[in-house]
Amino acid sequence: MTHTDFAAIVLAAGEGTRMRSARPKVAHKLAGRPLLGHVLAALDGLGARDTVVVVGPAMEEVESIAAPRPTVVQAERLGTAHAALQARPALPAPPDTVLILYGDTPLIRPETLRAMLTARADAAVVVLGFRAADPTGYGRLVTGTDGDLEAIVEHKDATTDQQAVDLCNSGVMAVDGALLFPLMDQIGNANAKGEYYLTDLVALACAEGHRCTVVEGDEAEMLGINDRSQLAAAERVVQDRLRAAALAGGVTMIDPATVFLSMDTIFGRDVTVGPFCVFGPSVTVGDGVEIKGFCHFEGCTIADAAKVGPYARLRPAASIGSGAHIGNFVEVKKATVEAGAKVNHLSYIGDARVGAAANIGAGTITCNYDGFGKYHTDIGAGAFIGSNSALVAPVSIGDGAIIGAGSAISQTVPAEALALTRAPQMTRDGWATRFRARMKRLAGKG
Amino acid sequence: MTHTDFAAIVLAAGEGTRMRSARPKVAHKLAGRPLLGHVLAALDGLGARDTVVVVGPAMEEVESIAAPRPTVVQAERLGTAHAALQARPALPAPPDTVLILYGDTPLIRPETLRAMLTARADAAVVVLGFRAADPTGYGRLVTGTDGDLEAIVEHKDATTDQQAVDLCNSGVMAVDGALLFPLMDQIGNANAKGEYYLTDLVALACAEGHRCTVVEGDEAEMLGINDRSQLAAAERVVQDRLRAAALAGGVTMIDPATVFLSMDTIFGRDVTVGPFCVFGPSVTVGDGVEIKGFCHFEGCTIADAAKVGPYARLRPAASIGSGAHIGNFVEVKKATVEAGAKVNHLSYIGDARVGAAANIGAGTITCNYDGFGKYHTDIGAGAFIGSNSALVAPVSIGDGAIIGAGSAISQTVPAEALALTRAPQMTRDGWATRFRARMKRLAGKG
Amino acid sequence: MTHTDFAAIVLAAGEGTRMRSARPKVAHKLAGRPLLGHVLAALDGLGARDTVVVVGPAMEEVESIAAPRPTVVQAERLGTAHAALQARPALPAPPDTVLILYGDTPLIRPETLRAMLTARADAAVVVLGFRAADPTGYGRLVTGTDGDLEAIVEHKDATTDQQAVDLCNSGVMAVDGALLFPLMDQIGNANAKGEYYLTDLVALACAEGHRCTVVEGDEAEMLGINDRSQLAAAERVVQDRLRAAALAGGVTMIDPATVFLSMDTIFGRDVTVGPFCVFGPSVTVGDGVEIKGFCHFEGCTIADAAKVGPYARLRPAASIGSGAHIGNFVEVKKATVEAGAKVNHLSYIGDARVGAAANIGAGTITCNYDGFGKYHTDIGAGAFIGSNSALVAPVSIGDGAIIGAGSAISQTVPAEALALTRAPQMTRDGWATRFRARMKRLAGKG
Repeated sequence: MTHTDFAAIVLAAGEGTRMRSARPKVAHKLAGRPLLGHVLAALDGLGARDTVVVVGPAMEEVESIAAPRPTVVQAERLGTAHAALQARPALPAPPDTVLILYGDTPLIRPETLRAMLTARADAAVVVLGFRAADPTGYGRLVTGTDGDLEAIVEHKDATTDQQAVDLCNSGVMAVDGALLFPLMDQIGNANAKGEYYLTDLVALACAEGHRCTVVEGDEAEMLGINDRSQLAAAERVVQDRLRAAALAGGVTMIDPATVFLSMDTIFGRDVTVGPFCVFGPSVTVGDGVEIKGFCHFEGCTIADAAKVGPYARLRPAASIGSGAHIGNFVEVKKATVEAGAKVNHLSYIGDARVGAAANIGAGTITCNYDGFGKYHTDIGAGAFIGSNSALVAPVSIGDGAIIGAGSAISQTVPAEALALTRAPQMTRDGWATRFRARMKRLAGKG
Repeated sequence: MTHTDFAAIVLAAGEGTRMRSARPKVAHKLAGRPLLGHVLAALDGLGARDTVVVVGPAMEEVESIAAPRPTVVQAERLGTAHAALQARPALPAPPDTVLILYGDTPLIRPETLRAMLTARADAAVVVLGFRAADPTGYGRLVTGTDGDLEAIVEHKDATTDQQAVDLCNSGVMAVDGALLFPLMDQIGNANAKGEYYLTDLVALACAEGHRCTVVEGDEAEMLGINDRSQLAAAERVVQDRLRAAALAGGVTMIDPATVFLSMDTIFGRDVTVGPFCVFGPSVTVGDGVEIKGFCHFEGCTIADAAKVGPYARLRPAASIGSGAHIGNFVEVKKATVEAGAKVNHLSYIGDARVGAAANIGAGTITCNYDGFGKYHTDIGAGAFIGSNSALVAPVSIGDGAIIGAGSAISQTVPAEALALTRAPQMTRDGWATRFRARMKRLAGKG
Repeated sequence: MTHTDFAAIVLAAGEGTRMRSARPKVAHKLAGRPLLGHVLAALDGLGARDTVVVVGPAMEEVESIAAPRPTVVQAERLGTAHAALQARPALPAPPDTVLILYGDTPLIRPETLRAMLTARADAAVVVLGFRAADPTGYGRLVTGTDGDLEAIVEHKDATTDQQAVDLCNSGVMAVDGALLFPLMDQIGNANAKGEYYLTDLVALACAEGHRCTVVEGDEAEMLGINDRSQLAAAERVVQDRLRAAALAGGVTMIDPATVFLSMDTIFGRDVTVGPFCVFGPSVTVGDGVEIKGFCHFEGCTIADAAKVGPYARLRPAASIGSGAHIGNFVEVKKATVEAGAKVNHLSYIGDARVGAAANIGAGTITCNYDGFGKYHTDIGAGAFIGSNSALVAPVSIGDGAIIGAGSAISQTVPAEALALTRAPQMTRDGWATRFRARMKRLAGKG
């Protein structure tokens, strides 16, 4: 048996009332990706042949996360085995193995799942277990002297000896595809809640003489998310994994706990990241980049040796060239800032090109929107934009051109030209003295 | 006996020299509220009939925090019993129960105090105890086989058996109002420091045959604040309580440890709060609001489904309408941004109304101050303010009007009009080439 | 023997491949200072007569950190004793004591080193030890009944009894200057790696009848930095030390873990620091200053009772006067903001003086750069700069002058004058209606 022929059933029908949310539980996000998306990504990475997601009624948002994978609806809440059984029509040709996972348990690592698939070569059922620091309340995995799994005993039903066992049941299973549905058909609901429990599958398999075994994962992987505190705890686990990977790859973070990454953040070597930075989805950072802190990035690329921040916001399709500088209180959106260009202070650069080595003065605004469309601003290489200027798009500033401070430029500026809009400076001597006297007089009257 | 007839004495005379501050210790703030204010708020919530605050000499700041509650001055530092005795004149008609609390111990929860008041029904004196992880140094609560409190033994006076007791004395007491002052009159000062200790009250009460009991609280509640490290530790406890409540109520926080709340922060459901946000006093956030991180709020309201941040600062009397957008590097103060309006970049909106669905361009400034008074800017529904404009208040922009980029508008703009101030664009061909040549020549000479 | 006559050898030849960096390991920074710089600063503070740094080949960056101290190159990597021996030519006249330290172990406190120098009065060799929470892998310090050091045993060579010892070898030594090189000459390389180990020096000294002793430090001090996770862990230790000192000195930090300090940050009393602040090198803060959070400081001074932030960036040579206000999204560089002046919103003040009690409107930019040089802006006391103005340097605004909003001022403004540049406001009635109709028509065609 190879690992390649396996399918997965992901149980994602829970409403998650403790989330106190209008949104289904598995649609909540971790590192910018829905909980369910983490599980699906792990399965895709392992090469699942088919993945079926079991959703609750009216969970269009979950269905769209699952798409294009098939979803089946569990109309009534009759237990985990009942939920998993709904997937049967979507898995007509049984694969060698079926993995059963949970959409609200997003931290299980691919290597843990791979170990389960490997263990399936020698067992009909492989249950994922973990050593709990405090096993109270968990079902215990009771193993024989040969290490084989003999039973799953609920905490309340456990003997004193069994309660001393710290090997607990995660609920995740890898089951022989030919046995899965026949065994599930035998699961009954003669229990307090009248539900069909997947855990009963182990006893049924053992009773038929099938071998059941355990693969152990870390307790941290098993964190199931039922409320927003657990969501925050899981975010912490994911972030710590991402931070550790970045540090190992050669990124300096002054305080990793203050840097928030996404699943797809890419760093070069010798990047320095100051405190308080957020990397949203789709950010790529080159070698030797210095990020000074208080930065917020999404969907952008920063080339080698650029210096960014503090307080820089790079939005989708911002592309910062090598050695370029983006300074404080600067927003860049859908714009290319070419090599060596500088946008150092209080500027908005949107729908624009800033040519190589151009210098954009403080307070420069590209006026890219007129209430209807977005228009392009093109700034040539080596241009110098005087501070506090408004560049009214569509507009083009030639290479090496200079714009006078405080201008509103709406017409093409040729290369090497000076352009400005400025009313003459008027001065009224003594006006301030008279103004203050008048204001004080008015205040006195008032 | 009901809980309603009780009074409280709050000891707040300590100077707090380890704070190294010109400010009295109990005036330092936790979650934006003075330490003493936390204690007083708990008492108000429980319905204290009277609360008397014992202050030190020249503590006007503490008196003003206590106001309108009466304060008495402990002129000399002669111990806790001496301090509490100062309150006698302010409590002429003894209530059923007197609670004795400390102004520098602000974390005791109302439910803990309520349990003490309940226990007072069956005992003359109720002492608040706690199980200390490391009891070294604390007075121990010695109880009999019936659980009654028999003595409070100082650590240094404790036998080996008594030192093994981990039930410690918090100093907080609920005492029969008829017994309190008569018992305190009997407390002597025959000890090393020559001070009058409130703890001696228990032995005196027992000696007179009165029943004394213990109510237990958590050790974390007992944290007394003597220096700025303890102040920071207490802030952490308060913040963690506030964060837990917000999470339980349906707020997603990417990292709760990076979100700072106030005692009165109000959240709707399905609010998302990004990393690095500060909620000062009096902030109300509606349902489904998205807060992107790096935000600073005080005294503002944000209506349902608004999107705010990153880097948004909302100051007192900022009111953000439903579905409105406040973007990066934007400050709003005493201004109403109506439903669906957008202020997305680098703007200052103060003393203003931004009409529904209006669009405020990047770099817009409401010039609300002339050095004497503050003036109003009124922007009509659907207006479009071109980027980098200054709106010189008092000024009114009509519904649907458009302001050209880079303008300074000081006169009324009618609805649906275009208004702008702009000098003609002047262009000097080749000027930049000549300027650079001249500058290089000058540099060469230099 | 006094403490004053000692020299130091600092081993800093390691490449640090696990840092995954183009930069030598000891050149990486902690609290803004290279790792090696922390060790050198401790030695300077103790009054080392000479300090020799042993570097690897082609480590110019390390040499420049060491300068003006002498460096010697270890051309081949033949062990710690071999590295230390390279320093012999640079220490021709043996001092009383030679301290041997490591450039990648920057957290050892000066008082720990001082204790070693003191202990040297009674012993030929003093080894710095520490009690390890988990001693696995460390060399153990085996002491006799008199407490003297008898041997250093590697973990793998240790007997069961020796493995139970939790006193571990840091590698740091203080050695009699007359004995150091003669003993090192005797160290052999008959071991698995064929390297010369400094630890062998203890056995050789004991064999010759010299007394060897141990001084203990904290485990946290011994943290050696081999990768970026350890670098981050060390940064945490340094920051926590700096934060504790600031708190003890009378600074309130809402959350100390969110405040980043430098080795030379100076605070007055009763300073309040909000969450999320970065203090780069050379920052001095006066008494009673309020810092609101989200601030970034480098090389600046803030005088008593000033109010700064949130979102204020003070860059080198920014000097903020007493009682002055610096508000949100404001950058100040090489500028003096005199007492009581206010720069509250969205401004860039560079190469400037802002006179006492002047008021700088929102969106003010000092245009200090023309692509070649930086020029000065002088703003007089009590001046009022209208919002959204550009001050084109070199330019001077007299005391009490008023600048109209939205101006670009390039000529001297006399004291008490009003100056402005403003084109007349033009209004086109109904233009917006016609514009929208046209845009919708165009969209329809498209």
